[in-house]
Amino acid sequence: MTSDAVRIGVAGLGRAFMLMLPTFRNDPRIKLVAAAAPRAASRAAFEAEFGGRTYATVEELAKDADVDLIYIATPHQMHAEHVDAAARGGKHILVDKPLAVSMGDADHMVAAAEAAGVHLIVGPSHSFDPPVSLARTLIESGEFGAVRMVQALNYTDFLYRPRRPEELRTEEGGGVLFSQGIHQIDIVRLLCGGRARSVTAQTGAWDPDRPTEGAYCALMDFQSGAFASLTYSGYAHFDSDCWMNDVGELGGPKSPEGYGQARKALRDLDPGAEAQLKSTRTYGAGREPLAPKHNEHFGPILVSCDRADLRLTPDGVEIFADTKRSFRKAPLDPAPRKPVIDAVVAAVCESISPAQTGRWGRASLEVCHAILQSAERRKTILLTRQCGTTPKEIHS
Amino acid sequence: MTSDAVRIGVAGLGRAFMLMLPTFRNDPRIKLVAAAAPRAASRAAFEAEFGGRTYATVEELAKDADVDLIYIATPHQMHAEHVDAAARGGKHILVDKPLAVSMGDADHMVAAAEAAGVHLIVGPSHSFDPPVSLARTLIESGEFGAVRMVQALNYTDFLYRPRRPEELRTEEGGGVLFSQGIHQIDIVRLLCGGRARSVTAQTGAWDPDRPTEGAYCALMDFQSGAFASLTYSGYAHFDSDCWMNDVGELGGPKSPEGYGQARKALRDLDPGAEAQLKSTRTYGAGREPLAPKHNEHFGPILVSCDRADLRLTPDGVEIFADTKRSFRKAPLDPAPRKPVIDAVVAAVCESISPAQTGRWGRASLEVCHAILQSAERRKTILLTRQCGTTPKEIHS
Repeated sequence: MTSDAVRIGVAGLGRAFMLMLPTFRNDPRIKLVAAAAPRAASRAAFEAEFGGRTYATVEELAKDADVDLIYIATPHQMHAEHVDAAARGGKHILVDKPLAVSMGDADHMVAAAEAAGVHLIVGPSHSFDPPVSLARTLIESGEFGAVRMVQALNYTDFLYRPRRPEELRTEEGGGVLFSQGIHQIDIVRLLCGGRARSVTAQTGAWDPDRPTEGAYCALMDFQSGAFASLTYSGYAHFDSDCWMNDVGELGGPKSPEGYGQARKALRDLDPGAEAQLKSTRTYGAGREPLAPKHNEHFGPILVSCDRADLRLTPDGVEIFADTKRSFRKAPLDPAPRKPVIDAVVAAVCESISPAQTGRWGRASLEVCHAILQSAERRKTILLTRQCGTTPKEIHS
Repeated sequence: MTSDAVRIGVAGLGRAFMLMLPTFRNDPRIKLVAAAAPRAASRAAFEAEFGGRTYATVEELAKDADVDLIYIATPHQMHAEHVDAAARGGKHILVDKPLAVSMGDADHMVAAAEAAGVHLIVGPSHSFDPPVSLARTLIESGEFGAVRMVQALNYTDFLYRPRRPEELRTEEGGGVLFSQGIHQIDIVRLLCGGRARSVTAQTGAWDPDRPTEGAYCALMDFQSGAFASLTYSGYAHFDSDCWMNDVGELGGPKSPEGYGQARKALRDLDPGAEAQLKSTRTYGAGREPLAPKHNEHFGPILVSCDRADLRLTPDGVEIFADTKRSFRKAPLDPAPRKPVIDAVVAAVCESISPAQTGRWGRASLEVCHAILQSAERRKTILLTRQCGTTPKEIHS
């Protein structure tokens, strides 16, 4: 640990924080110095492991003078209030995706961070995955010509993982759009230059017991001329990880024996027990993530350029060029979300923004809403809040 | 060969006929009795193999009193004239997909066949493939609930296979829509009940040397409430057969050593030599198709129903149900296109139509045009010429 490590305060010690833990533990460039969480057990576990100060509210955490940046890992619908508190405290902010649920909240958060002169980074998200960055680098090299078409699909068991009640209510940010679609949208926007022009989509809410969107198909087009097809199903049937070398979203091996487990685990639960089951996946509950052998990913993604198709894999990018195919390996770090820390350090120490700023997150959120609106109104939605991939463009 | 075999006259002895040859040779329910083709070498080969009569024009073939049904396997843009001649001769008709290039021709052909009281079947097409029929049977059983979403994608080297000049001119039926998209549209319509409501699409024509559509993404929705995402690329980069157990479109094994061959083969050709290269794939040129070990297919297709996802493979259908996955094998006949002959025999001998009638083919053609129009006008196209999957509906 160096003496000038970025001092991070954590708001929320739930599932999102758990997924960042291996990265936080292993990166000497940052130090966890404080946390806010409503559960005493989580706060005690944090104090025991990191020796930091803990608070019951984010409001208090934001006043801690020893904190450079607050990582907001609270439920979606609380992001706006917590970003506001952090900005008022003059803290830089890393906020988990999605930036917010409502566009009004997103506007407020972008304005609050800009007024306070603090960095607002939206992450982690799978747009930080090393194979995505490698694909961007390959695209920007110009070697393969312009990006023309992107195909992104993901079939998961998302809807049957343990949920709090609001995670199944669309208006509170539940369903697959805000939690899952946002990853796919972020990645596709990064690969196509960021500025989407329109979205036409259909959504499906097919299980009356979990009455929120569990699936969608969306067709997007971009100012660059590229277009993209995005498909997601969280209904726990086909698992598209079989097209990602049998590697799961978090980089670990996927075994056929696990088939149907998510649905089976829920089936015999008493009413009300589901939220409790989710809390077993929180910090201090004794479960620890494993160090993965592959990068994280968000399902099969194919990028068609003029002179090659790029296929993202959990290990890198397969290049299908005019006359030969080849493979470029992406870096695999023991701390799987190191690129998020890279972004945090660059922002706090050098004032360099990643692509994934507040404005970027707002643009991706706009696409989530456009998918819902397009499906409901049966029309193409024109987008008005888009931004490009470079910080210069974002801040212009 | 039974004495009451259906007597078929073949119009066109090119690549399409070649692909039907193993089926024609092996099915005792039909007999090839006559043919029409402009090339003397093809006619001579036909006479030598089948002992039938041959003609230089389809007009003459249509007057042959010994013919029950004419299989029209001529280039797309000639279908209308040849269907008209066959119908005037009172012959039943099997016409290769697409039914026609223009909707006006399609209208004329449907009317001509109906006025003459002859069956008009559009095929072969991949909608006849046994795994597609098996998926329909599984859907119609009701065991898995309603079809909600279909994902269909196919990445091939279509645009770099040897072509006649008109096959690269969209207005003459060139490009991927009329030759390739039509398969995907036929299959998706069959799985979703046939009656599409609207199409929103983007197309790509990215190679100035082959200036026709080589790719598209389309979003369709259906009167049933189902929706579908269709993606196609014929640019010979990524090959989606890797997601079909490394089995090619015609049921044979796909080898990684073949990568890039289509483009390489074209690269060093003299101008004008390409059409000649295509003619080496015609009947009488000495090349024979191999008996495949798997069914034909048209790329990965996933059908999401309420209680299962169905994945079509070259061997059958994988069923991903709520708590278990299973596999249902589709029949594999040594003659790969036996279902087309089943349809011919049922129509001619029992007057039972398949789903793939003239009206059906016109409805699929309408979707091809809607994809082109949607991309050009940047708007959703509402469909008006759709029909359902059962003959009763088609003829109502």
